[in-house]
Amino acid sequence: GEMAKLPQLLDNEAFRAYATYTTIVLLKMMLMSLVTAYFRITRKAFANPEDTASFGKAESAKKYLRTDPDVERVRRGHLNDLENIVPFLGIGLLYALSGPEVSTALLHFRIFAGARILHTFAYLIPLPQPSRGLSWAVGYSVTISMAYKVLKTALYL
Amino acid sequence: GEMAKLPQLLDNEAFRAYATYTTIVLLKMMLMSLVTAYFRITRKAFANPEDTASFGKAESAKKYLRTDPDVERVRRGHLNDLENIVPFLGIGLLYALSGPEVSTALLHFRIFAGARILHTFAYLIPLPQPSRGLSWAVGYSVTISMAYKVLKTALYL
Amino acid sequence: GEMAKLPQLLDNEAFRAYATYTTIVLLKMMLMSLVTAYFRITRKAFANPEDTASFGKAESAKKYLRTDPDVERVRRGHLNDLENIVPFLGIGLLYALSGPEVSTALLHFRIFAGARILHTFAYLIPLPQPSRGLSWAVGYSVTISMAYKVLKTALYL
Repeated sequence: GEMAKLPQLLDNEAFRAYATYTTIVLLKMMLMSLVTAYFRITRKAFANPEDTASFGKAESAKKYLRTDPDVERVRRGHLNDLENIVPFLGIGLLYALSGPEVSTALLHFRIFAGARILHTFAYLIPLPQPSRGLSWAVGYSVTISMAYKVLKTALYL
Repeated sequence: GEMAKLPQLLDNEAFRAYATYTTIVLLKMMLMSLVTAYFRITRKAFANPEDTASFGKAESAKKYLRTDPDVERVRRGHLNDLENIVPFLGIGLLYALSGPEVSTALLHFRIFAGARILHTFAYLIPLPQPSRGLSWAVGYSVTISMAYKVLKTALYL
Repeated sequence: GEMAKLPQLLDNEAFRAYATYTTIVLLKMMLMSLVTAYFRITRKAFANPEDTASFGKAESAKKYLRTDPDVERVRRGHLNDLENIVPFLGIGLLYALSGPEVSTALLHFRIFAGARILHTFAYLIPLPQPSRGLSWAVGYSVTISMAYKVLKTALYL
C-alpha cells in the first residue's frame, strides 16, 4: 500500500530527547520484572501453585507459596516506578510537544531519569533514608514542573 | 543545533483539550502518593525498615512496620487510578488524533476527569456504595466510547 | 472557533497499526477489572467495608472482607498487564514514529498482542508453566526489540 508521510516528530530535538529518556526509564522499569524473577527463584518464594510444580509433589511444593521480604521489596519498587513513570510518560510527551527550549527539556529529562535510577538503587540496596525519599521527590518535582509548562501552553478547559 | 519544526499538535483544539485533561488526571493520581505519605506518617505505618529508623532503635521501631486500614485504602485508590488512567492516557491520545468534534472530545474528557475525581472522594471519605462503583463505571464507559471511535477511524489489523 | 489542522498521524499505516493494537491490549487490560468484579461478587470477597453493606448488618457482613485465591490471581494478572502494557504504550508509540517498515511494525504489534492475550489465559485458567512464563517473555522481547529501534533512530542524550 501507499504510505502517508509521517509528521517528523523525531526530527525535533526536544522530542528525540523525550524518546530517548522515556525509553531508558521504561527499560529500567522493565528490569524490575527480571529482578523480581531472580529473587523469587533464589528465595524460592512464589505466588502461584503452578510456578512451584517443578519443585516436586504438590504437598512438598506448597511451602514455596509464600512471601519473601526481598521479593516484596522489589515489588514495591516496581509499583513505585509505575506510579511515577506513568505520569512522566504522559506529561513528558505533552511537554516535549509544547515547544520547550531543548536545553531546558534535556535538563528535565536527565534529572528525572537520574532520580529514578537512584531511587531504584536506594530501594534495592537499601540505602538509609532520606536517599529514597529525596530521589522520589526530585522525580516528582520534575514532573510537576513539566505539567506546569503543559498547562501554561495548552490549557483548554 | 538547528531545530526541526515540530508538528503543531498543540495548535489543535481537541489535542489541547486532551493535553489539559490528561495533565489534570495525572496530577490527581500523583496526589495519591502524598496522601499515602501523609497517612503513613500520621498512622505510623511503614513498609520498609529504613523508613522507621528515625523512630528510635531497631527493636522499638519494628512495631511501625505494619499495615494500616487508612494507608491500604489510599493505596487501593492509587492502584485503581493506575488501572483506569493508563487506558485513558493511551486511548485518549489516539482518540484526540482521530479527528473528533471538539465539543464531543471535550465532553468525553470532562466526564472522565470528573468521574475520576469523584471516584477518589468516594474512595477516601468513603461514600456509601454505589458512589464509588458508579464513578468508576462512568470513567470506564467514556474510555470504551473513545476506543470505539479510535477503532472505527484507524482499524488496521 | 477555528480549528488548526491536525498532523495526520492516523494516515500513516504503521501508526494506524499502533493505534489498533494499543487499543486492543488496553481494552483487554480493562477487561481484568470486570473479571475481578465478577470474582469478588461470586466469591463474596471484598476489600472495603462499604462494599459489603448490602449483605446485611455490619457484624455479619464483616466476614466478606477477606482475600480469595481467585480474586488475588486476577489481580496479579491485572498488575502484570500494567507492568508490561505501560512500556508497550510508550515504547510502541515512539517505535511507530521512528519510521519502521509497516510489515515489521505489524509483526511486532501482532506478536505482542497475541502474547499478552495468551498470558491472560495462561494466568486465569491457569495453564501449567512454562505457558505463562513464555508468553510473558515473548511480549517482553518484542518491547525490547522496539526499544532498540527507537534508540537507534532517535538517540539524543
